[in-house]
Amino acid sequence: MSKYVYFFGDGQAEGSGEMRNLLGGKGANLAEMTAIGLPVPAGFTLSTEVCTAFYANNRNYPAALEEEVAEHLRRVEVLMGKSFGDRDNPLLVSVRSGGRASMPGMMDTVLNLGLNDETVQGVIQQSNDPRFAYDSYRRFIQMYANVVMGLHGDALEDIMEEMKDERGVELDTELSADDLKQLVTLFKNKVKESLGRDFPSDPYEQLWGAIGAVFGSWMNPRAVTYRRLHSIPAEWGTAVNIQSMVFGNMGEDCATGVAFTRNPSTGERLFFGEFLVNAQGEDVVAGIRTPQPINKAGGDGSLPSMEEVMPESYAQLMQIQDTLERHYRDMQDIEFTIEKSKLYMLQTRSGKRTSKASIRIAVEMEKEGLITEKEAVLRVSPEQLDQLLHPSLDPNAAKEIIAKGLPASPGAACGEVVFCADEAEAEAKLGRNVILVRIETSPEDIHGMHAANGILTARGGMTSHAAVVARGMGKCCVSGCGDIKVDYQQEQFTTRGGQVVRKGDIITLDGTTGEVMLGQVPTVQPELTGDFNDLMTWVDKYRRMKVRTNADTPHDSKVARDFGAEGIGLCRTEHMFFEGERITAVREMILAADLEGRKAALAKILPMQKGDFLGIFREMKGLPVTIRLLDPPLHEFLPHSDSEIEELAKGLNVSARVLQDKVESLHEFNPMLGHRGCRLGITYPEIYDMQVQAIMEAACELVKNEGFDIVPEIMIPLVGHVKELAILKANAIRVADEVIERYGVKVEYLIGTMIELPRAALTADEIAAEAEFFSFGTNDLTQTCFGLSRDDSGKFLPYYVEQEILPNDPFVAIDQSGVGELVRMGCEKGRAARPDIKLGICGEHGGEPSSVIFCHKIGLDYVSCSPFRVPIARLAAAHAALMDG
Amino acid sequence: MSKYVYFFGDGQAEGSGEMRNLLGGKGANLAEMTAIGLPVPAGFTLSTEVCTAFYANNRNYPAALEEEVAEHLRRVEVLMGKSFGDRDNPLLVSVRSGGRASMPGMMDTVLNLGLNDETVQGVIQQSNDPRFAYDSYRRFIQMYANVVMGLHGDALEDIMEEMKDERGVELDTELSADDLKQLVTLFKNKVKESLGRDFPSDPYEQLWGAIGAVFGSWMNPRAVTYRRLHSIPAEWGTAVNIQSMVFGNMGEDCATGVAFTRNPSTGERLFFGEFLVNAQGEDVVAGIRTPQPINKAGGDGSLPSMEEVMPESYAQLMQIQDTLERHYRDMQDIEFTIEKSKLYMLQTRSGKRTSKASIRIAVEMEKEGLITEKEAVLRVSPEQLDQLLHPSLDPNAAKEIIAKGLPASPGAACGEVVFCADEAEAEAKLGRNVILVRIETSPEDIHGMHAANGILTARGGMTSHAAVVARGMGKCCVSGCGDIKVDYQQEQFTTRGGQVVRKGDIITLDGTTGEVMLGQVPTVQPELTGDFNDLMTWVDKYRRMKVRTNADTPHDSKVARDFGAEGIGLCRTEHMFFEGERITAVREMILAADLEGRKAALAKILPMQKGDFLGIFREMKGLPVTIRLLDPPLHEFLPHSDSEIEELAKGLNVSARVLQDKVESLHEFNPMLGHRGCRLGITYPEIYDMQVQAIMEAACELVKNEGFDIVPEIMIPLVGHVKELAILKANAIRVADEVIERYGVKVEYLIGTMIELPRAALTADEIAAEAEFFSFGTNDLTQTCFGLSRDDSGKFLPYYVEQEILPNDPFVAIDQSGVGELVRMGCEKGRAARPDIKLGICGEHGGEPSSVIFCHKIGLDYVSCSPFRVPIARLAAAHAALMDG
Repeated sequence: MSKYVYFFGDGQAEGSGEMRNLLGGKGANLAEMTAIGLPVPAGFTLSTEVCTAFYANNRNYPAALEEEVAEHLRRVEVLMGKSFGDRDNPLLVSVRSGGRASMPGMMDTVLNLGLNDETVQGVIQQSNDPRFAYDSYRRFIQMYANVVMGLHGDALEDIMEEMKDERGVELDTELSADDLKQLVTLFKNKVKESLGRDFPSDPYEQLWGAIGAVFGSWMNPRAVTYRRLHSIPAEWGTAVNIQSMVFGNMGEDCATGVAFTRNPSTGERLFFGEFLVNAQGEDVVAGIRTPQPINKAGGDGSLPSMEEVMPESYAQLMQIQDTLERHYRDMQDIEFTIEKSKLYMLQTRSGKRTSKASIRIAVEMEKEGLITEKEAVLRVSPEQLDQLLHPSLDPNAAKEIIAKGLPASPGAACGEVVFCADEAEAEAKLGRNVILVRIETSPEDIHGMHAANGILTARGGMTSHAAVVARGMGKCCVSGCGDIKVDYQQEQFTTRGGQVVRKGDIITLDGTTGEVMLGQVPTVQPELTGDFNDLMTWVDKYRRMKVRTNADTPHDSKVARDFGAEGIGLCRTEHMFFEGERITAVREMILAADLEGRKAALAKILPMQKGDFLGIFREMKGLPVTIRLLDPPLHEFLPHSDSEIEELAKGLNVSARVLQDKVESLHEFNPMLGHRGCRLGITYPEIYDMQVQAIMEAACELVKNEGFDIVPEIMIPLVGHVKELAILKANAIRVADEVIERYGVKVEYLIGTMIELPRAALTADEIAAEAEFFSFGTNDLTQTCFGLSRDDSGKFLPYYVEQEILPNDPFVAIDQSGVGELVRMGCEKGRAARPDIKLGICGEHGGEPSSVIFCHKIGLDYVSCSPFRVPIARLAAAHAALMDG
Repeated sequence: MSKYVYFFGDGQAEGSGEMRNLLGGKGANLAEMTAIGLPVPAGFTLSTEVCTAFYANNRNYPAALEEEVAEHLRRVEVLMGKSFGDRDNPLLVSVRSGGRASMPGMMDTVLNLGLNDETVQGVIQQSNDPRFAYDSYRRFIQMYANVVMGLHGDALEDIMEEMKDERGVELDTELSADDLKQLVTLFKNKVKESLGRDFPSDPYEQLWGAIGAVFGSWMNPRAVTYRRLHSIPAEWGTAVNIQSMVFGNMGEDCATGVAFTRNPSTGERLFFGEFLVNAQGEDVVAGIRTPQPINKAGGDGSLPSMEEVMPESYAQLMQIQDTLERHYRDMQDIEFTIEKSKLYMLQTRSGKRTSKASIRIAVEMEKEGLITEKEAVLRVSPEQLDQLLHPSLDPNAAKEIIAKGLPASPGAACGEVVFCADEAEAEAKLGRNVILVRIETSPEDIHGMHAANGILTARGGMTSHAAVVARGMGKCCVSGCGDIKVDYQQEQFTTRGGQVVRKGDIITLDGTTGEVMLGQVPTVQPELTGDFNDLMTWVDKYRRMKVRTNADTPHDSKVARDFGAEGIGLCRTEHMFFEGERITAVREMILAADLEGRKAALAKILPMQKGDFLGIFREMKGLPVTIRLLDPPLHEFLPHSDSEIEELAKGLNVSARVLQDKVESLHEFNPMLGHRGCRLGITYPEIYDMQVQAIMEAACELVKNEGFDIVPEIMIPLVGHVKELAILKANAIRVADEVIERYGVKVEYLIGTMIELPRAALTADEIAAEAEFFSFGTNDLTQTCFGLSRDDSGKFLPYYVEQEILPNDPFVAIDQSGVGELVRMGCEKGRAARPDIKLGICGEHGGEPSSVIFCHKIGLDYVSCSPFRVPIARLAAAHAALMDG
């Protein structure tokens, strides 16, 4: 028979930290903390298998579960010396979710469970504090009614606000025990009135209701969204943790707090956190009261720290955090409660951190001997680097600072102000940059936070929902900005200085300083620290795959090389066709009546194109450069509107009618599947001839005049059949060898192809007979494999991703089972036919970590990505290699 | 050491009929005929391996070849009692190509080789006929100069025409021996003058020149075109046959002829052919003189037959043709020559025939006990049926007959008159129907004949180039139409009756009667004979795959069922959306602002769509019907021009602006890869719901009211990911089961999908978990696999096919290594996941024989094709099954 429930308490635990998949992160860590002797309130965990069984079995629990829960509850009662539902000495419990991966704020929690009109008397008796007892009771009803019974949160909040108004008080804490007792009755009446059923008084009914709510919440839209954003499979399920309550809100010798063993923003090795006296944990996280710093070093002196207020507990906590970090060998995010001066640990987990912190912590831990180089590399997630590599505010730029909040998540962001998540999403879909401004955020805002460039909240600390989630997303956030007053109604906020900022106005956030500025402030490139360089040295030591860049200009080539690019994987020559006077020559070529006319126009383009290659080769000296010959259909170089056509016709000295006819004759129903790529090279060989000539002349000149070492890789795009490549390769060799002979130098060059059509992947063995390298063009391959036009998919693809019809946007992360399968087949067949073939990828997937890891697995030699993603790809490649073994 | 040369002569042969691949068809048959004791002039064959080696080795012969040829030549000399190059008794030879597959007129031939100023004296001595000797000599120079040396044919022809003008004669035969002798000198001078080198007098130099020309001609453009049209690989190569000359032009006791052992047009068991007295074989085939019939039964009495003129030779020939047919067990196409009353067999090969003849011969031979049922089935090529199944002229229609020629290739054709092959091709590319009218055709006209609907020639018999090629193509042809006078200059022809028909005028040909009619004459469906039915009975007995049809209307369904369709493989519901008032409702649906609006519009379409299904189900009673839910993007249902939009806006009572906006918002860059297929079903589930409801209501009503047996197969198009299908299947089941319950009847139904995207094929195992059947949509699969838009490929695909970059147009014959590989994988994975899954194909490949055979090989359950191609697919399926075992 399966075991579904795992006990922990008093140094004994049935689970352990290893059992994360079964017990969830929280449950595993509670077991682990218990086992290593830390003070953890006793409790037990319903494993994720219950969740799986629950959904597999039409939302029914396994038969044995009820008895198993009852048995474990008895064990907790014995240990705590309390009895669940007992009117004299009642055991109260918390019910919390806890999945395999941390999903902050996404899952529902119920505290103080077990309270009813009878047991509340027992709590009064035990605590000798009726106000505390009724406060706990009314909190329980509020939470339970909302989370378990589905009553809208405002319904009870409004009753309490009314009472505060009546009593003429502002804070919850100013309400008396009687007020709170009355609230309990009012709340229960409201529940009955709104939902048509009584608030459950039976503690067991409460317990099973809460368990059901946790499992049920696994499939609520917020959780589903979060999983989608973080690629967490629904099959993982969540565990449920049931744990004895301890109270941080039983008086001034009580407190609750959250802390990080190192600074999650900078990575500095400094115990860092916040706490609130006489409060429950949710008060810290929800950001309703602004919390105090845990120690003097972490505060600004405006509020007394725990180190000062509760020195003994602080010393104990310091000890514990050190134990935890050494035990887990990673920076921990902990929650604790002090009840009547006794410290309890409620949670520990690997702490979320900024990319900067992530790198610093990893590198310093390695230096401290806590972890190895390899572990340090694996500690930094490639996605995080994105944040680090993005620009920050230009320190020399003029800034009109209108407010200042907490530096909750670093980076700079700029955009139009919006005040609600839906609007943020809608505007972002239109391509606008927006800053989401909220009094505070909640899980309902996730989609808007995701869509926004940055987040600004008026309330909440460094561990508030907004701060935690924004850091997770690598998104700039300023939280707890008390300087601003947000008016949702008027769609504006007012600063302390009286500045009114309305919806649509542009502001800039600096998530590293907490500053809010009016208008757009210029940014500068990120400065990469010594830690970053240390880490990347290790990264390069452990990865197998090379990382190249996609670059079409000398400037981009230089940026990428500075970021560690080891060559160019894709130089798109068509971009060179659009610039300045070139486009005129290109248009002349298209309009030419015959071969001679086309050749004359191409002769004008040749020196310009050659100049581009000279610049790029110089930047990439000593490294390989893959140049793709012309790819887009010719109509892309012609104007389309009548007025543009008229103007161009004048410029080219042809009649508008002739030009119009040409535009029409080149029109295509499906340009993506049209006369482009090597099909142009086949029908207009003179175009590719010119390009090959330009490439080889540039290479030969450098070899001849500048002592260069360069191996141009000439890439033929959109090959579907080996004969296309065979013909174009023969042409290219003819032109290249003619140039080489003319210059009288020795230049090696390779000729290869993009594999970007399913047919090319399917017949890669045939194609490899001609190709010296393959570069998988996974953008186009995704379009053809899915039959999905990137330009047209906006009408349904977002819906597909939202509804989890597709696990990811396949243009972002490679679709491993479809597109990836073609790439895998292409590699296998390519290598079978030509064992030394060079294999790479140059689609945008080349800079997306999960795709890079996939590329490693199937054995590619390199990935190529945009310059700013080069370090991400390097790190992902190292992860892939280290995960290998 | 390899053997390259194979001897035949005097009952001895080193080769045999089996060695077709090595010796070519002609060489193998010469060996075979020799071996079975028929009178064949001695000779030898250079095998196809010489050709392969020649091209593999940069156009050089194998080292041993020269000696081997010399040795075999000596053997022939001994046997014939003549000596090659001997001035007293010279051996003359013919040099002919002969590939594995018959390629009429495509390869070059040289006759009378061995003649020079000295040996011609020997011929005079032996024949005692100087006129014959010089005529042979001048013919040899003409042929050799043209074929081997590359002199334009007209160059020498003009000299001869001049001489005839000078002599005041009309026919070649009217020139004297002296004239001809003089011509020889003039010809040689002209060669020297035009080519700058002497005409070779050394017989060995002549011989090797001719051998080289034959091998060289394997790669000439005409041969390449023919191979492309007939899917003959270049790797097969050609053999060269060198054979002692015999002469049908040595006097009135000489003759030459070609004949078929049965009538190639009707299939009647009647020896059928033509001959010319005192002529060489080329005279019959080229159609310069109108030949006489071989027997009384085959003629119209206007010319004396061989049976009457040369009764003894005729009797011998009758005997031989009977031997040959019994030996080869197939209708033979033979060539013979009578030299001084002695009969020689020059060639036998399987005779080309019309589809009608093909069927009759196969069925009758089976009844005669010559062949088995299976052989009979294999004797009829599926491609041929196309011809048979096409309409013929309505016998009751008024016809303005303006001329009559020979019924060279049956069927009816109608189109605009054009006078040159290039023009025929150009016009056909524009989608026009054309009739190619020529004085006579030559291999240079092949591409035009292919492009034309029908061919009309003024000269040439039933075995002329035009007739033979047209029959091979299954194309209507009227040849030898002496009633017309063609004027290429004026681009017109004039009939005997004075009717002038100009380029662009429409005429109709009846290839079965030889009639030429002015204007377009209505046609009727073909009447399928008893032979056809006998054959198709055998076909159905031996095939494994089912054949369904693609039909969207009750009418098409009926036609297809009459042709033997065993169900509908593809019923496209969108065609039903375009008709009459439906399109208005469809447009209302598209323009509806919300779900309710769409539902209201769909409710109007429901009864109409249901009516369609009722009609189709009734025609298909007892057979499966696969209905594809809506596939095209919605913008296809809206107008696009401003005026149409304005008009429609009025009709729908909306502003043109609103309609314009909708049209613009629905615009797609790549509609092929856009918001269509199941993507519509996902985003607008109400559309598919309506369609499923219509299908199921129709089925239920028939079951309830008409005692029907029908299993609707609901097909979801364009699935790329199994979840799409899972969602839409669940919707369909909900709607279908609701309908079934409402009607209270039992109706089984299947839900499956099109596999028409590479991703679907690659993940077919996952998709098969939801799909009860797969129908491979190879049209779209070809587009996505190749990245090739069918609509846009016109700018390069014809060039690709022409240049043999692709072996075939992949939209016509399935691309087996790319698209076919996806289909194969799809089948394999689909069956692995669901062993009883139904697998079929519904692209246009389903009616193309090579594709049908491929479908059989990979294990499909059925193919589906357009109604007229159903018998073709049935026959191809039988061929596939018979070739299997």
